[in-house]
Amino acid sequence: MSVKAEFKAGVQASEVPRDKCGVFAVYGVQAAAVAIYNGLFALQHRGQESAGMVVSDGRELRFCKDMGLVSEVFTGDFAECLPGHSGIGHVRYSTTGSSSVVNVQPFLANCRDGMWAVAHNGNLVNAAQLRDRYQKNGAIFQTSTDSEILLHQLADPDFFDRKDRLRQVLAELRGSFAVVFVRPNCVYAARDPWGIKPLSLGKLGGGYVVSSETCAMLQNNAEFIRDVAPGELIRIDEKGVKSMRFAEVPRSGKYGQCVFEHIYFARPDSHLFGQSVYKVREDIGRVLALEHPVEADVVVPIPDSGVLAAMGFAQASGIHFEMGFIRNHYIGRTFIMPTQGVRSSSVDLKLAIVPEVVNGKRVVLVDDSIVRGTTIRKRVEILQGAGAREVHVRIACPPTRHPCYFGIDFPDTGELVAHGRTVEQVRKLIGADSCGYLSIKGLCSVLDDARHFCMGCFNGEYVCETQQATSRESLGKSCGGNIRYRCGGMG
Amino acid sequence: MSVKAEFKAGVQASEVPRDKCGVFAVYGVQAAAVAIYNGLFALQHRGQESAGMVVSDGRELRFCKDMGLVSEVFTGDFAECLPGHSGIGHVRYSTTGSSSVVNVQPFLANCRDGMWAVAHNGNLVNAAQLRDRYQKNGAIFQTSTDSEILLHQLADPDFFDRKDRLRQVLAELRGSFAVVFVRPNCVYAARDPWGIKPLSLGKLGGGYVVSSETCAMLQNNAEFIRDVAPGELIRIDEKGVKSMRFAEVPRSGKYGQCVFEHIYFARPDSHLFGQSVYKVREDIGRVLALEHPVEADVVVPIPDSGVLAAMGFAQASGIHFEMGFIRNHYIGRTFIMPTQGVRSSSVDLKLAIVPEVVNGKRVVLVDDSIVRGTTIRKRVEILQGAGAREVHVRIACPPTRHPCYFGIDFPDTGELVAHGRTVEQVRKLIGADSCGYLSIKGLCSVLDDARHFCMGCFNGEYVCETQQATSRESLGKSCGGNIRYRCGGMG
Amino acid sequence: MSVKAEFKAGVQASEVPRDKCGVFAVYGVQAAAVAIYNGLFALQHRGQESAGMVVSDGRELRFCKDMGLVSEVFTGDFAECLPGHSGIGHVRYSTTGSSSVVNVQPFLANCRDGMWAVAHNGNLVNAAQLRDRYQKNGAIFQTSTDSEILLHQLADPDFFDRKDRLRQVLAELRGSFAVVFVRPNCVYAARDPWGIKPLSLGKLGGGYVVSSETCAMLQNNAEFIRDVAPGELIRIDEKGVKSMRFAEVPRSGKYGQCVFEHIYFARPDSHLFGQSVYKVREDIGRVLALEHPVEADVVVPIPDSGVLAAMGFAQASGIHFEMGFIRNHYIGRTFIMPTQGVRSSSVDLKLAIVPEVVNGKRVVLVDDSIVRGTTIRKRVEILQGAGAREVHVRIACPPTRHPCYFGIDFPDTGELVAHGRTVEQVRKLIGADSCGYLSIKGLCSVLDDARHFCMGCFNGEYVCETQQATSRESLGKSCGGNIRYRCGGMG
Amino acid sequence: MSVKAEFKAGVQASEVPRDKCGVFAVYGVQAAAVAIYNGLFALQHRGQESAGMVVSDGRELRFCKDMGLVSEVFTGDFAECLPGHSGIGHVRYSTTGSSSVVNVQPFLANCRDGMWAVAHNGNLVNAAQLRDRYQKNGAIFQTSTDSEILLHQLADPDFFDRKDRLRQVLAELRGSFAVVFVRPNCVYAARDPWGIKPLSLGKLGGGYVVSSETCAMLQNNAEFIRDVAPGELIRIDEKGVKSMRFAEVPRSGKYGQCVFEHIYFARPDSHLFGQSVYKVREDIGRVLALEHPVEADVVVPIPDSGVLAAMGFAQASGIHFEMGFIRNHYIGRTFIMPTQGVRSSSVDLKLAIVPEVVNGKRVVLVDDSIVRGTTIRKRVEILQGAGAREVHVRIACPPTRHPCYFGIDFPDTGELVAHGRTVEQVRKLIGADSCGYLSIKGLCSVLDDARHFCMGCFNGEYVCETQQATSRESLGKSCGGNIRYRCGGMG
Repeated sequence: MSVKAEFKAGVQASEVPRDKCGVFAVYGVQAAAVAIYNGLFALQHRGQESAGMVVSDGRELRFCKDMGLVSEVFTGDFAECLPGHSGIGHVRYSTTGSSSVVNVQPFLANCRDGMWAVAHNGNLVNAAQLRDRYQKNGAIFQTSTDSEILLHQLADPDFFDRKDRLRQVLAELRGSFAVVFVRPNCVYAARDPWGIKPLSLGKLGGGYVVSSETCAMLQNNAEFIRDVAPGELIRIDEKGVKSMRFAEVPRSGKYGQCVFEHIYFARPDSHLFGQSVYKVREDIGRVLALEHPVEADVVVPIPDSGVLAAMGFAQASGIHFEMGFIRNHYIGRTFIMPTQGVRSSSVDLKLAIVPEVVNGKRVVLVDDSIVRGTTIRKRVEILQGAGAREVHVRIACPPTRHPCYFGIDFPDTGELVAHGRTVEQVRKLIGADSCGYLSIKGLCSVLDDARHFCMGCFNGEYVCETQQATSRESLGKSCGGNIRYRCGGMG
Repeated sequence: MSVKAEFKAGVQASEVPRDKCGVFAVYGVQAAAVAIYNGLFALQHRGQESAGMVVSDGRELRFCKDMGLVSEVFTGDFAECLPGHSGIGHVRYSTTGSSSVVNVQPFLANCRDGMWAVAHNGNLVNAAQLRDRYQKNGAIFQTSTDSEILLHQLADPDFFDRKDRLRQVLAELRGSFAVVFVRPNCVYAARDPWGIKPLSLGKLGGGYVVSSETCAMLQNNAEFIRDVAPGELIRIDEKGVKSMRFAEVPRSGKYGQCVFEHIYFARPDSHLFGQSVYKVREDIGRVLALEHPVEADVVVPIPDSGVLAAMGFAQASGIHFEMGFIRNHYIGRTFIMPTQGVRSSSVDLKLAIVPEVVNGKRVVLVDDSIVRGTTIRKRVEILQGAGAREVHVRIACPPTRHPCYFGIDFPDTGELVAHGRTVEQVRKLIGADSCGYLSIKGLCSVLDDARHFCMGCFNGEYVCETQQATSRESLGKSCGGNIRYRCGGMG
Repeated sequence: MSVKAEFKAGVQASEVPRDKCGVFAVYGVQAAAVAIYNGLFALQHRGQESAGMVVSDGRELRFCKDMGLVSEVFTGDFAECLPGHSGIGHVRYSTTGSSSVVNVQPFLANCRDGMWAVAHNGNLVNAAQLRDRYQKNGAIFQTSTDSEILLHQLADPDFFDRKDRLRQVLAELRGSFAVVFVRPNCVYAARDPWGIKPLSLGKLGGGYVVSSETCAMLQNNAEFIRDVAPGELIRIDEKGVKSMRFAEVPRSGKYGQCVFEHIYFARPDSHLFGQSVYKVREDIGRVLALEHPVEADVVVPIPDSGVLAAMGFAQASGIHFEMGFIRNHYIGRTFIMPTQGVRSSSVDLKLAIVPEVVNGKRVVLVDDSIVRGTTIRKRVEILQGAGAREVHVRIACPPTRHPCYFGIDFPDTGELVAHGRTVEQVRKLIGADSCGYLSIKGLCSVLDDARHFCMGCFNGEYVCETQQATSRESLGKSCGGNIRYRCGGMG
Repeated sequence: MSVKAEFKAGVQASEVPRDKCGVFAVYGVQAAAVAIYNGLFALQHRGQESAGMVVSDGRELRFCKDMGLVSEVFTGDFAECLPGHSGIGHVRYSTTGSSSVVNVQPFLANCRDGMWAVAHNGNLVNAAQLRDRYQKNGAIFQTSTDSEILLHQLADPDFFDRKDRLRQVLAELRGSFAVVFVRPNCVYAARDPWGIKPLSLGKLGGGYVVSSETCAMLQNNAEFIRDVAPGELIRIDEKGVKSMRFAEVPRSGKYGQCVFEHIYFARPDSHLFGQSVYKVREDIGRVLALEHPVEADVVVPIPDSGVLAAMGFAQASGIHFEMGFIRNHYIGRTFIMPTQGVRSSSVDLKLAIVPEVVNGKRVVLVDDSIVRGTTIRKRVEILQGAGAREVHVRIACPPTRHPCYFGIDFPDTGELVAHGRTVEQVRKLIGADSCGYLSIKGLCSVLDDARHFCMGCFNGEYVCETQQATSRESLGKSCGGNIRYRCGGMG
């Protein structure tokens, strides 16, 4: 309702894959609002569109949420407005499409048994079916998100009086979810049966913390205990942590942990699915160097996403590592390129080339992944324009050729540069002298228990049914058109 | 979610009775957003807390709403963002209590049959019962308003397939309501069976307009057709206006039109319940002069609310009319008195006294009504401080001694100065030399068909059952606490 | 530098004459910032474009100033940021032309002898000459205002060491000025030798107050002492008030007090040039009724400017006074008419007609003055459209046919409707049935010592030389172009 | 005048040395405003407090300036508001002290010969003397900056009629300055005789560009021509570039190029004083490794300032380079730590530690410099807390023990941790296992023509007289106190 124009300004058709949010919860901590602030601040990389938190003072829930960065949404005396010792928080990623303040999480509802609030990271593939069912029963929907469905399930009279109400609710869900709830007197956390999304449990003073990534625990000086297990529901209240199961281990015996968390999404200082993200990325770089050796003078990463793989590549290959691109830290979210036509296409405000580093050199250019290929092509051009004799592109993951049904916001498959193209065709298109992707096998070699990872975007094999997958459009269709400054369709 | 601090700044414990909102709708007009803007602008006096509109382009609904004045909420290119030829709008009044952006109307919902939006002026006395019923059926509530219930009723499967669905919905309601709905292809308007709230139908070019007051028609150069009848539901679509009834005439044969609309709420250029507001107020002043004659030198109104009655009083009494108080137009909504303690209590930033007009004079001070009595006492003091020899207070309505269940935001009965006090006791309390209220009989004498008016706040007699009346608290109890800057309990 | 877009939005080519600002000063009061706030708040009608104050804590000067209303510029903890017991303030009127934050007063400067700040109401007709002289001496100018010259004069080495430095400075000025200065240890106030602009001295607790109008004293509960005399310089410091003269009484023995202060600019609760503004306006109405009698049914004012004259007219003529136009209080400064073309020209968002009052009636329409005539013509049309049988325009001042050199922002003489037209021609042009202006003689009859008033805009006779009059253009010429949002030429 | 609170929020007592601004100018380019935007954007690292530009359309100068980042100050249609083909720009660094919007450059003035605007990077050590002289002559000062003096010199009648006016002006200056001027028809650029501040000339299409650093040329696709020489004044107009001298080569034959530009200030992709900043920093790291060898497991930089030196150190030492600290990109300028007391002192929102990288390791921690020592001590602690077995601090410059008179904003000498302490004492204080600074000799070994660099902050030897050095205080003393939200002393 009050999406300030500037919040939309920086949004561009993205060249990078984007995840759907981060969640955070605390129970029994000194000042929940501050702990959640710190946690969301550390999870900011998972979503920059909006941020929100709900805090319980033991009797009531209070919220603060808006479009914007954590540091923009929570300002002034917000912590005094949100007293209490437990609560949940959420950051949401930015997209051009159906961005609207009505979709800002956590969502709250008054049910018959009082207030509930929920925050969800993931994508429910059976959202449209569930939504249909509840609409037939008379439910009205306020948002175009799949996450709102959870509130209607909680209010469902069929579940309401059951002792295992929340487990029944969760068992109905298909797809990916790391979800946290807060009630006046307790906090819940649950992770989908396939373990697609990460979720971890930690200890903070005498209380507890649940977070999408462990970096948000470090930020709070909390101590990592363990991952929430796939199919596990945790309830935290004054008696402590109680673990329950709402789903069996998948029949295949295999989980579907999102490998892109390690490749791109997660912060390097997080420990995810049992491994250090930092180490996995460096190792990927090392394997990449072995799989695609090249004679060259410097290894140059695209900062920041390609830095660790490039360092691993450099170590394994013995080629000098150099920061040939410098990242500009002052872009800000509100940046608008003035009078675009005036600028040459080879200038890039976000990354600056260091000509001295690449001039006359054979350059290995390392990035984490390629989506549409337009950005990497431009970067190859810039290197060549700065005098690089050769540019050898090395990508720290296999070719991305298939859609993700579980929350990664890839463009349509047809727009993926690797879709329907050989690596040689990709190379030509991006103008590089050579191009090498990490192999799936190579990727597996750096992962513990690689069979528990979903690599659907590389190989088209998914861990749970996706035929009914709910697209953003199917939920949003009934809702409403272009949303602009302070004006919105309901979606 | 983004209630800016300044929107709250001007809100103070009020001395004036306050109504609950204005509604407006158009169908088949050139640029619905502009017509609604003009209409809401003319209805701004009915609510300054928030404003919103929903416009249909024939297929989709789009909204724009926020805390603030009409001129603050609808800015920039809002009209381009809201294309279409039909729609509804709402202004909401300001209160300290449970003000929150989630309560800003119109409300929208995705039902099984698509989008609905609703805007409501009034107070449903059976809101708590209806809310309970829907919560038991699994409904979740987003706001603490009674108005949200209408959306749940619309989605109710028991009503859904009935041909007279909307009439069924309305027939369940008890209390006051002037309500407008918009769907992609039509607009509805309905008025409660007791006719408590005003609602009129007009013609605008080839299309139609529905408005709480006729002043909003004038603003659009629209032509008044007639009032929406008590118990009438109107549907406007491409076939024109269709009138239906959802309730019989009350068994008593009497309606309960709110007399305070004439006394205070409505704009003087409106025609309400069949009479000119301007004329009623002047006539009230004349009757007041006859009922409470006094020897004096000048008649001075409290601007603007007492001006017309004072003019009538002056005419009937032959005493000079003078603008002894000057209203400051620059207060603005964001005004905060700096360092209050420094200022003398007899200074008033909103009204300035003109000493020349009252010095040495016997003054008749006319205002529309007295609520707590603190303001009028202060004004009497200021007059005396400026040299008035005598101050005779004349009030353009009977003593307000009973609660209103239908939407007027009086303070608790115990806080009403006239509650449990004789007029003489009130006089002493406010420090006046004499004090005269209009009698109920006198009030009736200026009204056409006076028996069709509710005078519950004067005589304690109400037109429909009120024993189950839903207070703000009963709906809000489950929701949440003090709401402050950018932070809200869910209410 | 940060002229927010919205501050410009409401500015339109004006139909009303506009003055140049209000000034205010205090010495020896408890919290100077609060007293100045109150004072400027009461002077807001003299200028809505910008506001500023400078406060001295005895050693240093601190300022706060910006574009906007008093209540918009001074917010938050501004009073804590501006500690001290003396200071000055300024409000500036709004214009489309060279509005820029660099022109916001008070102006400050570091001179050899420390800090000075100045606030000025008026127009210096020899500004261009003085500016030339100082530029030749090496002065650089930051603003396009005549007021900045005062600072350069103060720093002028020719004056610097003289005991009567400030008197020398003031003696050089030609034109109108009510000016206040603050230094760390004292406050000065001065009024031009012709007494064109009003300036009064008052007592506030143990300290003093100087103000353009006495209404700002009332607002502070201060007590009026006397007007600052034409040609008088006052110094207020710890020893009290010291009066000096910097100019003789004009050779003509006549002053040139601006009669438009009484007609339009000043607030009715002010006492100006020895008379009550309220009384003068009512008396004008009475004389107007005698000079231009008419048979009619109602007297209707243009609110608020015509209200008092209309009341006087009604009293003298015995014709009913009615508020046929209702002023909308919610226009706000940021108002922009959306999609103007859609609206009919006969609709007016600022004033609403009350058809019941005028329908079928012979109406006397009273306003304070006519400038271009376009607004009054539109109002006559609206009356006729609402059914008025006859419309008789009565204007509470003589025809405005000549320029003002002393600060009233009339349009170019050629655009004045009365310039080169007989009253009958004006009547035709505005479409009224009759039209009557107050005569100069009639105006004089209500003024004490009428010979001391300047009526140059009526009769072309001015109290001081104007042949060298400095237009806005001559100062602004070197400066710069269109100024828009956050962007300015230096003017 | 409108310093928004948030612009101040992020400002903290700094642990890093800070420079004074960047300047940029163009002549004869297509859209000067866009080119200046790009240039200032690339120079943003030199100053984040405020930004401004002045553009000439051949006849007039227009400006846009405010507190904030380049992307915050220049928004909306600023480029359309600033038409023209030449102009200058400025970014200013952020400080707690006398930050005020009145100090935002460029400064403009109306002189006798029309408009001048100036932007200055540097520190004039004889500012107080010059200021005194002009104040005695009647000049008034608007800012507390030394840069304003240039405008008064330009207006000085003693210089005014001289053909070499601008050279006369510049010849009077002592201290550091890279300065650009714009007039309606030309642009000037000049560099102090000691070459302390960098300034380069480039070619952009058919026009020219002048910039503090070459990275701003790259950003505009401009071509580097040469550095502006110490003591050189350049005039660019329609006839092209004209070079003049306003000062001889210093008698010592040595320049005093600021070595801290290479160590810290400049962007790595700039070419400065004839060398690549990137290369110099890597080379420094290599020399540092030779001067202070250590047996260790990983080299970890403080990002971003220590990255290149750490890479050089790793290469020369053969020790693994790892990004043990991760920089958070979402801090933003408005960040305020909520409820600080709640947070443990060992948590750092700006840099996150990667425990896996340092746990159990002997760590070499590389940073560019140490100022107060508090930050590095905290970082050492964090490393130790994360399990580092040993922490060896290596600093990429010699100990900073002396003040800078030429623009680096070091704290008072007494607060410099290396002042009066041996390296061993510093080591103890910061809690490291060893500590090694680069030697002056080592630093010289990586610089071309090292004798032309000023190393005054290391060795106390300065290239020009400093005994009369003007401190911020001496200029600011007369001006004003604490400046807070929207409120300013004049400084």
